[in-house]
Amino acid sequence: MSLLVVGSVALDSVETPFGKADEVLGGSATFFSASACNLTPVQVVGVVGDDYPVDKLKPLEKRGVDFAGLERAKGRSFRWRGRYRHDLNVAETLETHLGVFSNFSPKIPAQFRNAPFVFLGNIDPRLQLDVLTQVDKPKLVACDTMNFSIESRRTDLLKLLERVDAVTLNDGEARQLSECYNLLKAAKWIMKRGPKLVIIKKGEHGAFMFTGDTVFFAPAFPLEEVFDPTGAGDAFAGGFMGYLAKCGDVTDASLRRAVIYGSAMGSFAVEKFSIERLLEIDAKQLASRVGDFRRLVAFEDEL
Amino acid sequence: MSLLVVGSVALDSVETPFGKADEVLGGSATFFSASACNLTPVQVVGVVGDDYPVDKLKPLEKRGVDFAGLERAKGRSFRWRGRYRHDLNVAETLETHLGVFSNFSPKIPAQFRNAPFVFLGNIDPRLQLDVLTQVDKPKLVACDTMNFSIESRRTDLLKLLERVDAVTLNDGEARQLSECYNLLKAAKWIMKRGPKLVIIKKGEHGAFMFTGDTVFFAPAFPLEEVFDPTGAGDAFAGGFMGYLAKCGDVTDASLRRAVIYGSAMGSFAVEKFSIERLLEIDAKQLASRVGDFRRLVAFEDEL
Repeated sequence: MSLLVVGSVALDSVETPFGKADEVLGGSATFFSASACNLTPVQVVGVVGDDYPVDKLKPLEKRGVDFAGLERAKGRSFRWRGRYRHDLNVAETLETHLGVFSNFSPKIPAQFRNAPFVFLGNIDPRLQLDVLTQVDKPKLVACDTMNFSIESRRTDLLKLLERVDAVTLNDGEARQLSECYNLLKAAKWIMKRGPKLVIIKKGEHGAFMFTGDTVFFAPAFPLEEVFDPTGAGDAFAGGFMGYLAKCGDVTDASLRRAVIYGSAMGSFAVEKFSIERLLEIDAKQLASRVGDFRRLVAFEDEL
Repeated sequence: MSLLVVGSVALDSVETPFGKADEVLGGSATFFSASACNLTPVQVVGVVGDDYPVDKLKPLEKRGVDFAGLERAKGRSFRWRGRYRHDLNVAETLETHLGVFSNFSPKIPAQFRNAPFVFLGNIDPRLQLDVLTQVDKPKLVACDTMNFSIESRRTDLLKLLERVDAVTLNDGEARQLSECYNLLKAAKWIMKRGPKLVIIKKGEHGAFMFTGDTVFFAPAFPLEEVFDPTGAGDAFAGGFMGYLAKCGDVTDASLRRAVIYGSAMGSFAVEKFSIERLLEIDAKQLASRVGDFRRLVAFEDEL
């Protein structure tokens, strides 16, 4: 089943202890689709400026990403410049230039409107709400959010939460939104506002999925070389939603596997700059990484 | 099979966001034995001053802890005073008075010397080495360590590592010891120095067990109320070693289950002050918590 994502398509300049990358593909919709396309066809809605190297999106198109909803506006593309030091869990933002993204108003092409799975990347919650008026009863809608929306668009964000099935956010955002330090309490607080499912991402410390009274946890995969953590959260969301769209159902068993696919995609994303590694994965490598996750947490029943 | 622990027996005064406790039972050997005795008989070697409320150890004795190796020395007992704020992963030490513990020289009673499982709590590595000269070929020796030993007793600590089978330490200590920020690299560095098995404890973020080329991970159990994190690491070690001593073997399957029992014990320890909760557990509650761990990480194979 097809999967629609609305989010940013940007150019990132990143410095890590292991190297530098300038003006490489970035943005939530880019990482999300580069990840999800390994599992299911993806439809992207976003905006870039007239300076965007759209040719560089071709490898994504070849892997099943449809950019019919990518608007090209007059002006500069969204650019982010950041740095990581040894604690790769913490990004230091050096520059953000929103460019054409500051006037983004998502227009969902007619052929995308019946997508059964919809992911609303971390854009303004008013835009996320607007997308919901343009789609036809999706089977599952998930949204991401960010500290700016929690601080400055709280009323709209709470309205959005009433209308989505699932939320993905990181531990800091969950605490900020709920004003609960304890993540279990934070998740319950969020579920009371509408979503049946809350995923709290903890970066290198893994991710929790909360649904009703059950909790599922997936560790981050222990890698010797975490090269660049940028986009790991969006790659996680892409793997999660991509897996659900691929199997087409949202049972507890599928949701758990979806979190593992999300974690696997997050672990690939950080192995190289930008979306490089996500574009190299084949089905065998993905299955092998999922198997590694199983061995990482598996324990047998009592003898 | 019996399990010998050598470590501190102290009095803790603790303040958390949820309450205060004054002069309650603490110390690594105390938490370790309160945890392990739920699984196997435990033999304690340590020292207390003549002011120690030894009567309060009776509930431990009733649960199978043998204090024949607990020396009573003239002077004050080891006291620790600490505080936790909202981030319960970080203890703030307000006062430490070593008292009689500063002259501790472990003497292993004759009847303890053939214990097949030995745990060396985080005392001076010279004393940990000395214990090894007093025991008869144990099946498995594990040691803990601490930042002071890593900084100031490095040579002795490296000698100790050559002689133990397993090490438990927290993430910060693993990084400090190995000078590797990456925990997988840190574990490999440590294994090169001798131990076949390294457990890196990450507090609320769970624990890794490294053995040869395999990695096992257990999350910390998500609790709505983490009341007092003091002793969680020692309770973890007690559950880990207690499970191994109970089943008497050290196969990969047993080791994985042992980490889960350790995590379960750590999760009980933090539910109340001191060793209170560890003394209430029965076999049913323990089995139920282990089942919760299974559900927390379980995912089914592809349909």
